[in-house]
Amino acid sequence: MARKLIVKRSKKAGADPGTLIHIGRPSDLSPTIRVIRYDRDGLSDQCIDDPAQYVAAPCADQVTWWHVDGVHRPDLVEALGQKLQLHPLVMEDILNTDQRPKVEDYEGYLYIVFRMLRYDPDSQQTDSEQLSLVLSQQFVLSMQEYPGSVFDGVRKRLINVHKQRLMRTDALVYALIDAAVDHYFVALEQIGDQIEHLEDELLARPTPATLSRIHHFKREMLMLRKSVWPLREVLGRLWRDENPLISAETRLFLRDVFDHSVHIMDTIDTLRELLASMLDIYQSSVSIHLNEVMKMLTLIATLFMPLTFIAGVYGMNFAFMPELSWPWAYPAVLVLMLAIALGLVAFFWKRHWL
Amino acid sequence: MARKLIVKRSKKAGADPGTLIHIGRPSDLSPTIRVIRYDRDGLSDQCIDDPAQYVAAPCADQVTWWHVDGVHRPDLVEALGQKLQLHPLVMEDILNTDQRPKVEDYEGYLYIVFRMLRYDPDSQQTDSEQLSLVLSQQFVLSMQEYPGSVFDGVRKRLINVHKQRLMRTDALVYALIDAAVDHYFVALEQIGDQIEHLEDELLARPTPATLSRIHHFKREMLMLRKSVWPLREVLGRLWRDENPLISAETRLFLRDVFDHSVHIMDTIDTLRELLASMLDIYQSSVSIHLNEVMKMLTLIATLFMPLTFIAGVYGMNFAFMPELSWPWAYPAVLVLMLAIALGLVAFFWKRHWL
Amino acid sequence: MARKLIVKRSKKAGADPGTLIHIGRPSDLSPTIRVIRYDRDGLSDQCIDDPAQYVAAPCADQVTWWHVDGVHRPDLVEALGQKLQLHPLVMEDILNTDQRPKVEDYEGYLYIVFRMLRYDPDSQQTDSEQLSLVLSQQFVLSMQEYPGSVFDGVRKRLINVHKQRLMRTDALVYALIDAAVDHYFVALEQIGDQIEHLEDELLARPTPATLSRIHHFKREMLMLRKSVWPLREVLGRLWRDENPLISAETRLFLRDVFDHSVHIMDTIDTLRELLASMLDIYQSSVSIHLNEVMKMLTLIATLFMPLTFIAGVYGMNFAFMPELSWPWAYPAVLVLMLAIALGLVAFFWKRHWL
Amino acid sequence: MARKLIVKRSKKAGADPGTLIHIGRPSDLSPTIRVIRYDRDGLSDQCIDDPAQYVAAPCADQVTWWHVDGVHRPDLVEALGQKLQLHPLVMEDILNTDQRPKVEDYEGYLYIVFRMLRYDPDSQQTDSEQLSLVLSQQFVLSMQEYPGSVFDGVRKRLINVHKQRLMRTDALVYALIDAAVDHYFVALEQIGDQIEHLEDELLARPTPATLSRIHHFKREMLMLRKSVWPLREVLGRLWRDENPLISAETRLFLRDVFDHSVHIMDTIDTLRELLASMLDIYQSSVSIHLNEVMKMLTLIATLFMPLTFIAGVYGMNFAFMPELSWPWAYPAVLVLMLAIALGLVAFFWKRHWL
Amino acid sequence: MARKLIVKRSKKAGADPGTLIHIGRPSDLSPTIRVIRYDRDGLSDQCIDDPAQYVAAPCADQVTWWHVDGVHRPDLVEALGQKLQLHPLVMEDILNTDQRPKVEDYEGYLYIVFRMLRYDPDSQQTDSEQLSLVLSQQFVLSMQEYPGSVFDGVRKRLINVHKQRLMRTDALVYALIDAAVDHYFVALEQIGDQIEHLEDELLARPTPATLSRIHHFKREMLMLRKSVWPLREVLGRLWRDENPLISAETRLFLRDVFDHSVHIMDTIDTLRELLASMLDIYQSSVSIHLNEVMKMLTLIATLFMPLTFIAGVYGMNFAFMPELSWPWAYPAVLVLMLAIALGLVAFFWKRHWL
Ligand SMILES: [Mg+2]
Ligand SMILES: [Mg+2]
Ligand SMILES: [Mg+2]
Ligand SMILES: [Mg+2]
Ligand SMILES: [Mg+2]
Ligand SMILES: [Mg+2]
Ligand SMILES: [Mg+2]
Ligand SMILES: [Mg+2]
Ligand SMILES: [Mg+2]
Ligand SMILES: [Mg+2]
Ligand SMILES: [Mg+2]
Ligand SMILES: [Mg+2]
Ligand SMILES: [Mg+2]
Ligand SMILES: [Mg+2]
Ligand SMILES: [Mg+2]
Ligand SMILES: [Mg+2]
Ligand SMILES: [Mg+2]
Ligand SMILES: [Mg+2]
Ligand SMILES: [Mg+2]
Ligand SMILES: [Mg+2]
Ligand SMILES: [Mg+2]
Ligand SMILES: [Mg+2]
Ligand SMILES: [Mg+2]
Ligand SMILES: [Mg+2]
Ligand SMILES: [Mg+2]
Ligand SMILES: [Mg+2]
Ligand SMILES: [Mg+2]
Ligand SMILES: [Mg+2]
Ligand SMILES: [Mg+2]
Ligand SMILES: [Mg+2]
Ligand SMILES: [Mg+2]
Repeated sequence: MARKLIVKRSKKAGADPGTLIHIGRPSDLSPTIRVIRYDRDGLSDQCIDDPAQYVAAPCADQVTWWHVDGVHRPDLVEALGQKLQLHPLVMEDILNTDQRPKVEDYEGYLYIVFRMLRYDPDSQQTDSEQLSLVLSQQFVLSMQEYPGSVFDGVRKRLINVHKQRLMRTDALVYALIDAAVDHYFVALEQIGDQIEHLEDELLARPTPATLSRIHHFKREMLMLRKSVWPLREVLGRLWRDENPLISAETRLFLRDVFDHSVHIMDTIDTLRELLASMLDIYQSSVSIHLNEVMKMLTLIATLFMPLTFIAGVYGMNFAFMPELSWPWAYPAVLVLMLAIALGLVAFFWKRHWL
Repeated sequence: MARKLIVKRSKKAGADPGTLIHIGRPSDLSPTIRVIRYDRDGLSDQCIDDPAQYVAAPCADQVTWWHVDGVHRPDLVEALGQKLQLHPLVMEDILNTDQRPKVEDYEGYLYIVFRMLRYDPDSQQTDSEQLSLVLSQQFVLSMQEYPGSVFDGVRKRLINVHKQRLMRTDALVYALIDAAVDHYFVALEQIGDQIEHLEDELLARPTPATLSRIHHFKREMLMLRKSVWPLREVLGRLWRDENPLISAETRLFLRDVFDHSVHIMDTIDTLRELLASMLDIYQSSVSIHLNEVMKMLTLIATLFMPLTFIAGVYGMNFAFMPELSWPWAYPAVLVLMLAIALGLVAFFWKRHWL
Repeated sequence: MARKLIVKRSKKAGADPGTLIHIGRPSDLSPTIRVIRYDRDGLSDQCIDDPAQYVAAPCADQVTWWHVDGVHRPDLVEALGQKLQLHPLVMEDILNTDQRPKVEDYEGYLYIVFRMLRYDPDSQQTDSEQLSLVLSQQFVLSMQEYPGSVFDGVRKRLINVHKQRLMRTDALVYALIDAAVDHYFVALEQIGDQIEHLEDELLARPTPATLSRIHHFKREMLMLRKSVWPLREVLGRLWRDENPLISAETRLFLRDVFDHSVHIMDTIDTLRELLASMLDIYQSSVSIHLNEVMKMLTLIATLFMPLTFIAGVYGMNFAFMPELSWPWAYPAVLVLMLAIALGLVAFFWKRHWL
Repeated sequence: MARKLIVKRSKKAGADPGTLIHIGRPSDLSPTIRVIRYDRDGLSDQCIDDPAQYVAAPCADQVTWWHVDGVHRPDLVEALGQKLQLHPLVMEDILNTDQRPKVEDYEGYLYIVFRMLRYDPDSQQTDSEQLSLVLSQQFVLSMQEYPGSVFDGVRKRLINVHKQRLMRTDALVYALIDAAVDHYFVALEQIGDQIEHLEDELLARPTPATLSRIHHFKREMLMLRKSVWPLREVLGRLWRDENPLISAETRLFLRDVFDHSVHIMDTIDTLRELLASMLDIYQSSVSIHLNEVMKMLTLIATLFMPLTFIAGVYGMNFAFMPELSWPWAYPAVLVLMLAIALGLVAFFWKRHWL
Repeated sequence: MARKLIVKRSKKAGADPGTLIHIGRPSDLSPTIRVIRYDRDGLSDQCIDDPAQYVAAPCADQVTWWHVDGVHRPDLVEALGQKLQLHPLVMEDILNTDQRPKVEDYEGYLYIVFRMLRYDPDSQQTDSEQLSLVLSQQFVLSMQEYPGSVFDGVRKRLINVHKQRLMRTDALVYALIDAAVDHYFVALEQIGDQIEHLEDELLARPTPATLSRIHHFKREMLMLRKSVWPLREVLGRLWRDENPLISAETRLFLRDVFDHSVHIMDTIDTLRELLASMLDIYQSSVSIHLNEVMKMLTLIATLFMPLTFIAGVYGMNFAFMPELSWPWAYPAVLVLMLAIALGLVAFFWKRHWL
């Protein structure tokens, strides 16, 4: 069964703005909070339970990366929000996991939210989850809905390479965005392969199942487009707006990931148009097939109806039918029938029906 | 039966601009006017009949919220308008309940008008009513067409919590808009559920009723889009334009509700495209079904016409048909018929018609 | 028969720009020129034949309203144009009655041209005529193609009420525009009613006439859109551009009538999309109906062809057909036929064809 | 046969930019160069062969109008270009007769290029040719592909009337553009008439030829749109941009001809949408017709198949069929057949199939 | 088989940004690096293997043109990038051969990337490769994926003509872009010819192969559009933005090549719409053909079913059928059958079915 198009928000109707309620798929897992703090001299990496009790004050140049898996516990989001002094509307958006991708300016930090993509080759469906990022001068907060390995590469680079570039929070946020956007390519490639496979099937031998698969992919494209179109705007704003939190060097890299999002959008649009064209082909194939079937029927009927009629005439029981007693009448009628049949076949031939 | 697309305006044709005539569904209910006045120290809440006689002058920091249920009495609207010194065009727009959502600047106040949504699960129709808001430094006026409970939450918060934030008129107006916009989510969720249900039905077993239900939902989406598209512009202007009546803090909250309207618009567009795709599927299903039926007909006709013809030939009454007297002719003809039938079935099998 | 889409302009091809030739439907009526001159103290209202001979010089604060019914006499338009010192291109546009709605700035005056709408319920067609307005500090010129009562209300208000507001030429022009735009609502309401009626007919029992009526309304919408889309731009420019001829107060009222034009445009677009959806429904209905008919045919053919074949077999005249002489053969064959028929009916039942 | 959509440019691939090669339809005619030079005092009009030898230096206020019929001789275009000091890219564009309409600023002159339209009523095709205009302070150069009479009117006005207005080069260029644009109206009127005629035919009695004619006109509209859409931009820029070569008075006239181009574009769009709607009607007509035919077939088959079956039963040759010897059996069977026929007709009637 | 729509990028997912991996079709050829260095006095042209070892420092006014065929060796790209001090993101984009066309500003140089087109008349497919250009004050770098002759003309001009214009790097880059864009015209012409040929086939005698060829070309247009649409933006930015690396004179020439790209885009859009219209025609043709076939079937069935029924009636074996013994009954029945046949033919004639 296909996924729901619309996430339930109704339980919040009429609630006070800023009321912290989780909107999204419920989860049994306990969220994990991992805090990585580093500067040029070293790095600490620990998992904590209660953000309020994480007291160590950062030194001047230290970067702190808070990463949370699981946003279904409002109390935890609230504790984190208070620790990091986030606006109630930010906490609300983190909890409501159907946000339209956007970037919002708050005093002292940027709030970035978009969807990460995963493609499950078994169910042939794209799955997505909300990624919230907060970028300030001192810290980066990243919150995703489910545990996953997307950011493992970034973490490894932090530990191993101590790259100059990641010494700033904006560079860390870029690395996270880039890792997330890369997964769109993986998903799109697999969907693209399947659509091209479907296209071959369509041109070779379409079946009703082809139709429902075309519809399935049109639906997938609809969902993807809804995620990627505003993501493009988000990345465009990040590299074009001159924000003091983002250095000129990082903006060059953000331009690159923006470029990726345009590329992804183009691919989605191309696949959409391909699917539309495939549907047209499908509908025409059905018509062509019907034509063939009907030609066959017409041929048979046109051939045998006159012959059967003639046989019927000479099957009548009238007392006075002189032909019946002529000795050569039977072969003559057989010859007549053959002539009619040949004449009709010739007629069909001329009309290109054979 | 479906709702009317167009509200009757013709009775106003040629009238002097500013003529106060109610345009909309007539109502027997008597409008109620409720005035809530509050500051940090206290709150008074009373229902009045004649606005002209409500004399108490507000103290410096007091906020007055006029709320009216029912706009079908022009005299009342006029009395209120004169009390609050509204422009005749504002009074006219309040009375003409088919306004396109908009926000208009007048000297000293803003006039905001849009539609509130309600979804009736029984008739499976969305219903809407016009909400007019006037925002000035001292007062807020809200006028809706029918009595309803949408703003009960706001009223309760005023009475119970005495939130700091609601001490300004702009915050009160925001709270009202937010409560109204939340109801769009409720309605869209229910429509979305029904459309997805219809989609399952379509893929499993489409009937002509499926078609008219697709049309019904396309019509609903048309109506919704007409309300939400300009609403988005209204909310966009409210948070982007720097208006002295609206504080920077409230603008952050208006950005949030603008974000909701974009979300709603996206959902409507997705549902529209889904419905378009569903119609395509429906039309193809009908064609596929026709193909199946015609294949069956062609099969039967092609199988039996030649056989019936042969039977007809040997039913002819010619005196000289030597075969008729051969003893093994009857079984031979039966075998011939069987061979023809098997040959045709093989032919159909090879053409994938079976 | 439907109206012509394109007004003949070819007779002007190659002519000198500014050549005064009437383009439009010819008319036998003699144009009437009515001049109303008024200030706060009084009003004179007279019909004249030759504008050149209307000599009385206006006093400082007097407003002169020239109103002409009929623009098919180039000499008259030229005489008026010279009297009021209009640019040759303005005179040309007045005579060429297929102008796209527009507003043009000339030195000392504005030229506004758009189409007025009339709906004839008998022929179920919208009819339109060109309205040219010239707004200067001292006078207003309004020229329509055919005599009509659209501006009677404005004239009455001038005579009776002596409203403060109409003491300026811009207020008079606004009153004329508003009266003209109001008639769009009347026409759209009647068209909308008919389209909704057609929709009911379509869902209940579509006929080929339904199709040509859908096409008729699509054509009407095409024509309307062509008139209203630029009208919206015209009214948008009138209230947004700060023109010294138009006071701030009148601009508020022009914003209101602009709002009406947006409303009209929205309604047209909604009706267009409704008609598109109705055409889809129509086409699907035709296919569904075909399916039903073909199912019936297939049923009958599948039922009777095998039975008729069996009857044919036992109608053959072979000498040696032992079954023919068995006493229970005839009832046995009848039972076989019944069994086949019941089997087929069961098969159809299972396939949901009955 | 329809015209080519794409003009061959490939012979230029890889050539040095500015290489002068004619691209377009070859011509055997020898190009003619006509030079008209005039001021308030007089006018000289001569045809020359070699522009290089035309030496007479113009006096201060003289206007020189170079007009060339035929651009297929690169040497001539080069000679002219050198005489008038044109940029190599301008000469190239003059020779390549598939330019997209555009206006380009060069130092000291404007280069304007667009397509002139001609409608040939015999072949029912629009034909077009490229018109290049160069506007400088001293001269106007106009180059068209084929000899024609479009500018005869302008030439006559120059000779006869000595209009004040034409004393400037910008006024002359306007007069040429206006004459060319007027011919679009002529062509569109004739196409519009034919499309409306086709519409009548479509509603009355569509044939397969109707379909290919709809396609023909859709193709024409495609070509026209490709010419007119950028022409509108060209004329918009000419009247909006303040260019020292164009006086304020001429800009008023250019606004008028811009207005014409918008009008033409609107008409093309309306015709396009009408043709799209006509195609829908055509497709529905075909379906409706098929329905009628199939109803007839089903009726006949449903009526006669059961009756023929009954006749077949009593044509069987079983020895023991007691009914055969009952005296009233034959009329009874006939009555039974009639009853079945009447019953089926009643059934069809009730289902509205008759 | 059609080309892949999507180039595999997934192997880069999660990699560090700037990681140099080749994305594109693998190649066995060894890349060649050709360096041409010239000034007004002379020109050197040599092929090198290792860019790091190319030491000769350029004199002040010398232009160096690095040209590389083959970008599938990351080590080579890296060596070149370090030699020319390119940003890691530029090297990455050179290696990832599915870039969306774009122009990017880096300090001291511009990076331009777009697709070159080639049309293979045998496979009737357009093929494309990525062209990367780097423009600095001293050098031009051009890198294409496969060896080819597109830039031979430019090289010859450098060697032979020593044109003044090519003495600057911006002029050289223009010459390269112009040569590449010219090849689009060649490809489009050949596709356009084939589409028009397909159109003739469609109108004369459509077959199912026509359908799959229409789909093939729609797919081609999709791919082309994806390349050309952003190319237009690239060229637009190159001539409109005032960049110190590009002289005013070269910008005139860039405007010309921008003009070409608009022309190409227009042609693609026209072909797209033509193909859409062709599909509509195809679908209608199939329906028309079905109608013809069904008319034939209905005619035959309607003609022979009643006649066969009559013959069946007189083939019944009732003992008491008085007609059977009347001498003129047989000819009378034959005449009756003829009359019925003629009546039906007349009926069909009147209904225009013959
Ligand atoms: Mg929010
Ligand atoms: Mg990219
Ligand atoms: Mg871009
Ligand atoms: Mg794009
Ligand atoms: Mg697009
Ligand atoms: Mg479609
Ligand atoms: Mg209003
Ligand atoms: Mg709008
Ligand atoms: Mg949102
Ligand atoms: Mg948006
Ligand atoms: Mg959007
Ligand atoms: Mg849109
Ligand atoms: Mg869209
Ligand atoms: Mg004009
Ligand atoms: Mg427009
Ligand atoms: Mg209004
Ligand atoms: Mg409105
Ligand atoms: Mg729209
Ligand atoms: Mg549609
Ligand atoms: Mg050029
Ligand atoms: Mg364009
Ligand atoms: Mg205009
Ligand atoms: Mg016009
Ligand atoms: Mg349009
Ligand atoms: Mg569009
Ligand atoms: Mg269509
Ligand atoms: Mg990149
Ligand atoms: Mg251009
Ligand atoms: Mg060009
Ligand atoms: Mg377009
Ligand atoms: Mg289509």
